[in-house]
Amino acid sequence: IFSTAEATVVLRENGKMREKSLTMDTLNPQVKAVEYAVRGPIVTKAGDIERGLQQGQKHPFTEVIKANIGDSHAMGQKPITFLRQVVALCSFPELLDSSSFPEDAKQRARRILQGCGGQSLGSYSASQGVDCIRQDIAVYIEQRDKGVPADWDNIYLTTGASDGIVSILKMLVSGQGRSRSGVMIPIPQYPLYSAAISEMEAVQINYYLDEDNCWALDINELHRAYQAAKEHCHPRVICIINPGNPTGQVQSKKCIEEVLHFAYEENLFVMSDEVYQDNVYSPDCQFHSFKKVLYEMGPEYFNTVELASFHSTSKGYSGECGFRGGYMEVLNLDLEVKAQLVKLLSVRLCPPVSGQAAMDVIVNPPLPHEPSYLQFHKEKRAVLGALAEKAQMTEQILNTVPGIKCNPVQGAMYAFPRIFIPPRACVSLLQSLGISPDMMYCLRLLEETGICLVPGSGFGQREGTYHFRMTILPTTEKLKVLLEKLRDFHIKFLKEYASLEEPKR
Amino acid sequence: IFSTAEATVVLRENGKMREKSLTMDTLNPQVKAVEYAVRGPIVTKAGDIERGLQQGQKHPFTEVIKANIGDSHAMGQKPITFLRQVVALCSFPELLDSSSFPEDAKQRARRILQGCGGQSLGSYSASQGVDCIRQDIAVYIEQRDKGVPADWDNIYLTTGASDGIVSILKMLVSGQGRSRSGVMIPIPQYPLYSAAISEMEAVQINYYLDEDNCWALDINELHRAYQAAKEHCHPRVICIINPGNPTGQVQSKKCIEEVLHFAYEENLFVMSDEVYQDNVYSPDCQFHSFKKVLYEMGPEYFNTVELASFHSTSKGYSGECGFRGGYMEVLNLDLEVKAQLVKLLSVRLCPPVSGQAAMDVIVNPPLPHEPSYLQFHKEKRAVLGALAEKAQMTEQILNTVPGIKCNPVQGAMYAFPRIFIPPRACVSLLQSLGISPDMMYCLRLLEETGICLVPGSGFGQREGTYHFRMTILPTTEKLKVLLEKLRDFHIKFLKEYASLEEPKR
Repeated sequence: IFSTAEATVVLRENGKMREKSLTMDTLNPQVKAVEYAVRGPIVTKAGDIERGLQQGQKHPFTEVIKANIGDSHAMGQKPITFLRQVVALCSFPELLDSSSFPEDAKQRARRILQGCGGQSLGSYSASQGVDCIRQDIAVYIEQRDKGVPADWDNIYLTTGASDGIVSILKMLVSGQGRSRSGVMIPIPQYPLYSAAISEMEAVQINYYLDEDNCWALDINELHRAYQAAKEHCHPRVICIINPGNPTGQVQSKKCIEEVLHFAYEENLFVMSDEVYQDNVYSPDCQFHSFKKVLYEMGPEYFNTVELASFHSTSKGYSGECGFRGGYMEVLNLDLEVKAQLVKLLSVRLCPPVSGQAAMDVIVNPPLPHEPSYLQFHKEKRAVLGALAEKAQMTEQILNTVPGIKCNPVQGAMYAFPRIFIPPRACVSLLQSLGISPDMMYCLRLLEETGICLVPGSGFGQREGTYHFRMTILPTTEKLKVLLEKLRDFHIKFLKEYASLEEPKR
Repeated sequence: IFSTAEATVVLRENGKMREKSLTMDTLNPQVKAVEYAVRGPIVTKAGDIERGLQQGQKHPFTEVIKANIGDSHAMGQKPITFLRQVVALCSFPELLDSSSFPEDAKQRARRILQGCGGQSLGSYSASQGVDCIRQDIAVYIEQRDKGVPADWDNIYLTTGASDGIVSILKMLVSGQGRSRSGVMIPIPQYPLYSAAISEMEAVQINYYLDEDNCWALDINELHRAYQAAKEHCHPRVICIINPGNPTGQVQSKKCIEEVLHFAYEENLFVMSDEVYQDNVYSPDCQFHSFKKVLYEMGPEYFNTVELASFHSTSKGYSGECGFRGGYMEVLNLDLEVKAQLVKLLSVRLCPPVSGQAAMDVIVNPPLPHEPSYLQFHKEKRAVLGALAEKAQMTEQILNTVPGIKCNPVQGAMYAFPRIFIPPRACVSLLQSLGISPDMMYCLRLLEETGICLVPGSGFGQREGTYHFRMTILPTTEKLKVLLEKLRDFHIKFLKEYASLEEPKR
């Protein structure tokens, strides 16, 4: 018996025309299985429409508003001046002689360059990152966590947070059949997780966040998911996203304690995705790092639970996605395994050094006595203040729309409202087209209003419920327009599909 | 029966102390299988010695000379001014108003920023990279290849070349048992290839380069390797590194034609690693791109053979490794597969945008009428001139040493000389320690002289032969010192081990 691919080779040996070597039939099935909705078909279509508009095509709108991805600068947010000054100084050190750069930015740049081979941003760094940047990160974490010790030997610079998450997962995934590694992820989740799990042929274990309780993580649901999964795989790791993406909740200290206790009991590796740690808006909420909570649970926990936490330059108040900067701190890693992790990272040589420099500024901002202090904090406050205002506005306006219910956007950069689509309409009309009702909803929204969102199915949701994810990143004025257009669209959509609910006899 | 990992869980449920979840027993075996000598144990040891020297430890030398990795700036090469000006302008656009930057650098920066969301380097780019940079790359390739058409839709920006190579391999690898994908790689090879193949559980198919013929690729050896591999796997792809790493040879046009004809006949996907395309030193040699040769073979070849070629900011005359810039051009990819590739790339969002900007400068340097033209070309010539001089010096000095034979360094940045270690010495003394003789050689070289090289076993070599890879990147003076120290060490080493050849009775 020949596979399709082998048949192709046989044909060729018989002298026929060359066939393609790489086709959908011969493509790695794990690649095929990967899905990543944040840049999926809706976004592709939005790009097509945008190009069409530029070429003069007619649409019922004049502009595509992209609220599909947490890309702050693309939505008009201005870079933090100090950060860019440091990166420019590192990139072109001749500027260190220029009087138009403040002394604190120069001091940061000199320090970073001294950590680089040949004092150049163009050298490879060590695989774990530039030493002095790792040291700055450790100091930052200690301050953030009010004195909980941080060892820079546990810090690894990464290419955005995604790279670190994928590297840690790669270490943990193995086995076949019932001993295949299981990865517990929240539903809804950020689809990097499901994509990586597919690609690595691990088992995705869903634990559902509690939508009726502001997307809180319920420890009973963790137990349920774990026990069910144990029947068919080997759960190895639990992933938490806090503040939540796409759900925007901020976890309570008690909830984090419960998760850590659970991980301790069940010998799970903990991955805490904390890239939105600076994005907390709700006055009742506070960011608690998994590490600090683990520390406060006592040495039996702090010295044993394996915890990797992730941060990034892309979110927070800096929004520097393009620099692909990030770091992870990994606690209690077995020493031999640590050497294996460094080896794995060394194959891709090093994370981008300019991204490392950007990360350094975020963990080592101007101090009160330094010349850039006031401007830095003014800019930081302006960004975070506007986000807090937009978080509240988004929730408020969405909750005035009949058939939309939106939890408070306590943190992160997204709302993930539930949309009520008449159930019979879903079954009768939409499933016959083979696409999910929320995908249909988002497609029509895009075509009729120019608003680009991501359907909830791209993140996962309880069966029979529908959502979308939208960022709160457009400017306040544009976001208001977006929300009003969305309201009008939703009312019209509901009316249209509600009529389908009448039995046709 | 429980696996070790499952037993750990059972213990925990019985109330014993928490065990580690991730140990060498539970680590992904594919990660364990990965080897990457360029940053392997010798390099770790070199780092330890370096730190020791700084802390006042005594060694028979005062400085570690790292000739293990192609890291130009770390070895003292200065950045190209124009490139860094453009990157600094992009990073801190306020500088566009500064009179101390030339107009052509500003024009490049403005163009790049216009291609970025919100005109900021901090936005994510499209997964394939910034449109206008992809267009510039296509124009560059057309010029390089004397008019062979290049479509910017086939261009993908990458995070260094490694990222592109891994992505393409990931697409091609699948199957189990006899239908497992086989990847043909040269021996000696750059160990990214073997590491990626291990990690993906593909089959590595070695074809040996001809050391006696200046490391040329022999088409008969390709046939041999292919036929032998067909018995136990499904060969899918052939990788070529031209100019060679670690071997420094530059392939002839005839040889490239033969490879492409072979790939055409056997339905293989072709990956040509051309990151050293600007690094050709030997006056008898010329870089021929696989693409141009394919074009000249006629439309039956040019329109059918699937070819991915890779380039990088890290090598050439710029040596900008830290920016992690690169691109790949992929020809004749099936359209559906192309969509899958873009999806796969989209999961990691985008390559670093500052690396993309650096790549843009390399493909779009100052033109004769522009203000930076003279300085740019002066700097470029200086770098390439010095490399050519060092390539020749390295070969010459090494070939004066008895027991070392070095092929001409026609291109790239490395010499890969053969070292003759008395065979009985290898067997009797060295293999008993469980490390390869060339590893022992390099370890002793490091300990006695402070010179850090990579043993040939990290790249692959014919059984019973031993080599090392050294870069030609130290400054001319330092390289001369290195080569002389190496000569003295080798003579001493040979003497010591030659005595072991006497049978001891």
